[in-house]
Amino acid sequence: MCTASISAWQGVERLHTFLVVLDLAGTFVFGLSGALVGVRKKLDLFGVLVLSFAAANAGGITRDLILGAVPPPAIRDWRYVAVSLIAGLLTFYWSGIIQRRRSAILLFDAAGLAIFAVSGAQKALTFNLNPLGAVLLGMLTGIGGGMLRDVLVSEVPTVLRSELYAIAALAGAAVVVGGHMLNLPVGPAVLVGGLLCFGLRVIAIRRGWQLPTSRQRVHDDQLK
Amino acid sequence: MCTASISAWQGVERLHTFLVVLDLAGTFVFGLSGALVGVRKKLDLFGVLVLSFAAANAGGITRDLILGAVPPPAIRDWRYVAVSLIAGLLTFYWSGIIQRRRSAILLFDAAGLAIFAVSGAQKALTFNLNPLGAVLLGMLTGIGGGMLRDVLVSEVPTVLRSELYAIAALAGAAVVVGGHMLNLPVGPAVLVGGLLCFGLRVIAIRRGWQLPTSRQRVHDDQLK
Amino acid sequence: MCTASISAWQGVERLHTFLVVLDLAGTFVFGLSGALVGVRKKLDLFGVLVLSFAAANAGGITRDLILGAVPPPAIRDWRYVAVSLIAGLLTFYWSGIIQRRRSAILLFDAAGLAIFAVSGAQKALTFNLNPLGAVLLGMLTGIGGGMLRDVLVSEVPTVLRSELYAIAALAGAAVVVGGHMLNLPVGPAVLVGGLLCFGLRVIAIRRGWQLPTSRQRVHDDQLK
Repeated sequence: MCTASISAWQGVERLHTFLVVLDLAGTFVFGLSGALVGVRKKLDLFGVLVLSFAAANAGGITRDLILGAVPPPAIRDWRYVAVSLIAGLLTFYWSGIIQRRRSAILLFDAAGLAIFAVSGAQKALTFNLNPLGAVLLGMLTGIGGGMLRDVLVSEVPTVLRSELYAIAALAGAAVVVGGHMLNLPVGPAVLVGGLLCFGLRVIAIRRGWQLPTSRQRVHDDQLK
Repeated sequence: MCTASISAWQGVERLHTFLVVLDLAGTFVFGLSGALVGVRKKLDLFGVLVLSFAAANAGGITRDLILGAVPPPAIRDWRYVAVSLIAGLLTFYWSGIIQRRRSAILLFDAAGLAIFAVSGAQKALTFNLNPLGAVLLGMLTGIGGGMLRDVLVSEVPTVLRSELYAIAALAGAAVVVGGHMLNLPVGPAVLVGGLLCFGLRVIAIRRGWQLPTSRQRVHDDQLK
Repeated sequence: MCTASISAWQGVERLHTFLVVLDLAGTFVFGLSGALVGVRKKLDLFGVLVLSFAAANAGGITRDLILGAVPPPAIRDWRYVAVSLIAGLLTFYWSGIIQRRRSAILLFDAAGLAIFAVSGAQKALTFNLNPLGAVLLGMLTGIGGGMLRDVLVSEVPTVLRSELYAIAALAGAAVVVGGHMLNLPVGPAVLVGGLLCFGLRVIAIRRGWQLPTSRQRVHDDQLK
């Protein structure tokens, strides 16, 4: 019995570590995307760092406030701050290298979306949120950082104008929650969910996939 | 005594149901307003649904975070999600019908403002917030959804530029709180408060009522 | 022993009063800055008051949500509301007088930044947040109000484009937290921290000090 409870405890401990590592990875890539937007907008060093921090941590902070898990690790834990700062500094001084590939912001953003969607869903499950709530909170965690990043530089957020953005996050979060309901192991479910979200988003960008827009015409004079 | 406690319990139960119904109605009309803005901005289907969800639930989520009532029903309860989605889908596919009348966004927005102002104030009272806090939180709940909706599409929120917007929400919330202080029954107070808010807002739109703007001139060069 | 505990209690009481006074002062000057932006944007009376309230209280509300100190005083306590309203009304009717000096918004904004940075850090310490978290939360409290104010009128927030803004808040908060770690008395630490932040910001404005911007060129076509 003692062995069983130790192993259960180790399981919880490992799950926690796993979530933190995921979160830090998401923090890093969203930090890169935020900092790249900052460099593009010609912000100074500290503006870039603030945007990097905002993009990297807004999703997780929102998730934690909604779950009542306060104060959120993004504030309490030095690693989140350090990771955001490093992402910001790297981008500021070497953004040329980081963005060798075309559309670097979009790729980092897609990775952050995927990681936070699955980590958000998983954390919501550990707080005993119901399945729908966990899927939804996963999506919110995924889209939150990018939304704040874009709103802060007065742009309409990617999530509203882009190809399969929120729906990719939803799909990733749904895989994690579905795996939980079927009692599948957490690791593979998170991996599959994350890859599905990232894959959907990247393919959508490459192929210009897009959901239909409404055929309804809204006359501007009706809506002033 | 047993009868009394059962009836008290029934009263609490009924009040709770009443609040949920109000909330769902507000969610629906704000969802319509968010989705109409999305269609006008030519967002694709999922962008419209995200904007619909944001407009419909931001006010309630803010209210619940401020009250410490986490996780908020908007995340936890499938009905809020369903109602937002239905509002979004209806608008996306049949916005032509929905907006037969001129200024459909404004009307739905006014209805959402009224419903959330009174439901926000009432929920704050059930959390034992003091009267001023309840009025203020009612106002915030009312204006929150529309604010996020407008900020997300890079527009200055209606609440800042429109005729009697926040003050209408304040009046509606004040009626609910005043009724509570006078021990009047909840239902009629909520009804009167909601109608007052909606009426004030609609009349203000129709007649172009507006509060004065400051006569102070602010020189642009002073404020760069 | 009884005397000791009374005096400890008096200390806590006095610290609390001190924090409230600081908070109210920050609320007032941020309220002025919000209202001045509103007058400049030609908002009507209530729009000005909403912007004044938002600028004055967003930082503190965010801090309290993150600390789990709900409902926040900004909603619960009539003095915050009153102070915001007075700042808004003063500005609306006499903004000519308030802004005799050039760049009035910037000065009030700098004062609010300084006050909220130190009060946020101090409040975080009383909630037993670790030093890094307290510095960070001080910074967030300082920059929160101005961020929301600028986002609401569709402008890129001062914090992202201005001379030594967030870093000034960080410095002020760090002094408070450093003082706490060295067991120095709270009052002087807060005073020094606040003056440092205000001074840094004002000198940066006057001299046009600025951190470097990245030399990396980001080609627009790479980042669409």
